[in-house]
Amino acid sequence: MSETIAIIATCDTKGEEALYLKQRIESYNMKGLVVDSGILGEPVFVEPDVTKDELAGYSGFTIKELVEAGSRGAAVEKMRDCIHAYVKKLYEAGKIQGLIAIGGAEGSVIARAAMDALPLGVPKIAVSTIASGKHLFSDLIGYNDATVMHSVIDILGINSISRTVFNNAVGAIVGMAKVKPEASDKKIKSIGISMLGTTTKPIMGVIKPELEKRGYEVLTFHANGTGGDCMDTLAGEGFFAGVLDFSTNELVANNLGGLHVAKPGRMEAALEMGVPTVVAPGAANILVLSSEEALLSKYDGRRKYYHNPNITLINTTVEELKIIAATFAEKLNKATGKIRFLYPVQGFCSQDKEGLTLWNPDGNPVFLAELKKNLRQDIPIIEVDAHINDDEFANVAFEQLLEVMGVAM
Amino acid sequence: MSETIAIIATCDTKGEEALYLKQRIESYNMKGLVVDSGILGEPVFVEPDVTKDELAGYSGFTIKELVEAGSRGAAVEKMRDCIHAYVKKLYEAGKIQGLIAIGGAEGSVIARAAMDALPLGVPKIAVSTIASGKHLFSDLIGYNDATVMHSVIDILGINSISRTVFNNAVGAIVGMAKVKPEASDKKIKSIGISMLGTTTKPIMGVIKPELEKRGYEVLTFHANGTGGDCMDTLAGEGFFAGVLDFSTNELVANNLGGLHVAKPGRMEAALEMGVPTVVAPGAANILVLSSEEALLSKYDGRRKYYHNPNITLINTTVEELKIIAATFAEKLNKATGKIRFLYPVQGFCSQDKEGLTLWNPDGNPVFLAELKKNLRQDIPIIEVDAHINDDEFANVAFEQLLEVMGVAM
Repeated sequence: MSETIAIIATCDTKGEEALYLKQRIESYNMKGLVVDSGILGEPVFVEPDVTKDELAGYSGFTIKELVEAGSRGAAVEKMRDCIHAYVKKLYEAGKIQGLIAIGGAEGSVIARAAMDALPLGVPKIAVSTIASGKHLFSDLIGYNDATVMHSVIDILGINSISRTVFNNAVGAIVGMAKVKPEASDKKIKSIGISMLGTTTKPIMGVIKPELEKRGYEVLTFHANGTGGDCMDTLAGEGFFAGVLDFSTNELVANNLGGLHVAKPGRMEAALEMGVPTVVAPGAANILVLSSEEALLSKYDGRRKYYHNPNITLINTTVEELKIIAATFAEKLNKATGKIRFLYPVQGFCSQDKEGLTLWNPDGNPVFLAELKKNLRQDIPIIEVDAHINDDEFANVAFEQLLEVMGVAM
Repeated sequence: MSETIAIIATCDTKGEEALYLKQRIESYNMKGLVVDSGILGEPVFVEPDVTKDELAGYSGFTIKELVEAGSRGAAVEKMRDCIHAYVKKLYEAGKIQGLIAIGGAEGSVIARAAMDALPLGVPKIAVSTIASGKHLFSDLIGYNDATVMHSVIDILGINSISRTVFNNAVGAIVGMAKVKPEASDKKIKSIGISMLGTTTKPIMGVIKPELEKRGYEVLTFHANGTGGDCMDTLAGEGFFAGVLDFSTNELVANNLGGLHVAKPGRMEAALEMGVPTVVAPGAANILVLSSEEALLSKYDGRRKYYHNPNITLINTTVEELKIIAATFAEKLNKATGKIRFLYPVQGFCSQDKEGLTLWNPDGNPVFLAELKKNLRQDIPIIEVDAHINDDEFANVAFEQLLEVMGVAM
């Protein structure tokens, strides 16, 4: 069977370009499946393989409902959800093996939703007018291996620039679609671990080598507001044999702000999928702020640690720790598989240690009490009388991970 | 001859990955040419085809000078210039037909410099850890058709994620390198025109159709701080038979701030290349500000036009217009080919018109006087007693463009 590439475009304004892409893809003996993500107008130049009515209908809408959503933004948001669901369905049914999306500002919303729907390794590329200047990568790329090409000019027909750009974009998606997985791909069992600078020592010094000795591949994710979400995305795709969510400052940021804000659903994918998971509160009792934000008067009187010229770490209050603990409980309570929570009695991160700036001997027990109050009774909390960066704690983390994975030491 | 793809990586830390990419590229019967952009350490795993010493030496440096540049940032900046010059040389000498770059935060500086060095249509892709979240596209993509793939995890060896990502990235670059230009590619003569919403009417209504009637292809660039630079980049590659730099608000922003700030060298590429060029001051007497910025007290008492919820247009003062005119003169004086400056007596943009908010009958003549004072005597200024959006002005612009291109009406 030859590969099929979905072509995502608003065919009312970009039908000519969609047709061109289809012809180019088919010149490589692959199939181009045109999906019309337009809302207002009828397709021009091209006959979509998936009409906007079918797209909306699959998510339980009519195009009329989208048009009447109240604003252009609201309509595009609904279409975003429709395209995500439909592309996911197409891929899971084996109908497409990759996608190419084209568009401008609103097209980027659609392109990202489409690319978000395809797992790691499935080819995905967007050609976009906004892939330049001060636009953010998050406008087009989420937490997977999405690819973006700058269109150079507005997408307004086929001319000597757009033809060159589209020809290369088709070359890229076709080249990716032809990649044959190597024999070694994904035979090994992988463990996902969330890591931050402040929790690197136990992971790289003890946990990673111990797991590797037993034949596991350890993949660490820099949990700075993107890495955690990338790990979650892969967990949701069934990529991991086990997850050690060791560095969980993103849950603090989601509640209280700072540099590491992640998706609201952070941590939940592995738990909901039933992936064996061990969770620790690494750096989950500090605020990680930009140097400027750390100067705000609301942080006056707090203890501050100058991490580097850009980043200041600040301690959390007892009230804040209650909120953070409740968030942990809320997420852990969604678990469908075997999990453990590990509590490091002597501190949550390198600066939260007796004698150091962010030591929090009053706050941490409040965190623990609040967690116990809210956590499902069947979820074990293991209190370890050590600091999170001590070998003793790392060994417990490693052993408990094997335990939840059902592997003998 | 089989294609050669340059592989740009810091081989002291990412030698294993560079070797992997080389092997994958060579599995497609292309050649991988490893260029070591590392500064501090010696290459590991791989023997670079271009050493860091050769790279630095080509730009007249030694690696020792880079190491001693004063700071890590200063060293990377020097290496950025070295890689740009070397990649340009490799391409122009026919030694490479595309490139793949890998890296993180500092790697992105190198990747962008490398991709910036290749003209439109020459395959270029970066695999980057920072292609996500709040990072800016400008960290990796300049003004051409650069392509970026998100690495998902830190680039720390070959594992089941990075292998998948790299395999697809190689598939993409190989697929692009195999693209054969279509027969129709670039036989037509192209005209580049800078456009903004406020100057759309004369361009789309008169100038574009008139040029198309005579067999030209018209490519418009949205001159909002990126489009103008994209047009300049292509002009510098010899892409255009002529340039109509009609909408030049970017020169205002470069001097006085606002949303449309472009590269300092804006407008100069076509002029220095000797491309036949006609310049008009479209929207060159207004500030285009964000709604928030427009509220700053320094703009109190100015005339303001609420363009949309995000953008406010504000008139310029006589003193500001002198600065803007001097900038036009400075750039136009660099011209090596035939050029004209067109002056629309009745206003520079849709709101600069008798009876409308931003009409500037006192300021515009000061702009003209200052321009005359500073402009080379051999550069004609053509005063047209019309508004910039009038058909009369558009016709003069079109006729003068044919004139400088040496084409009979």
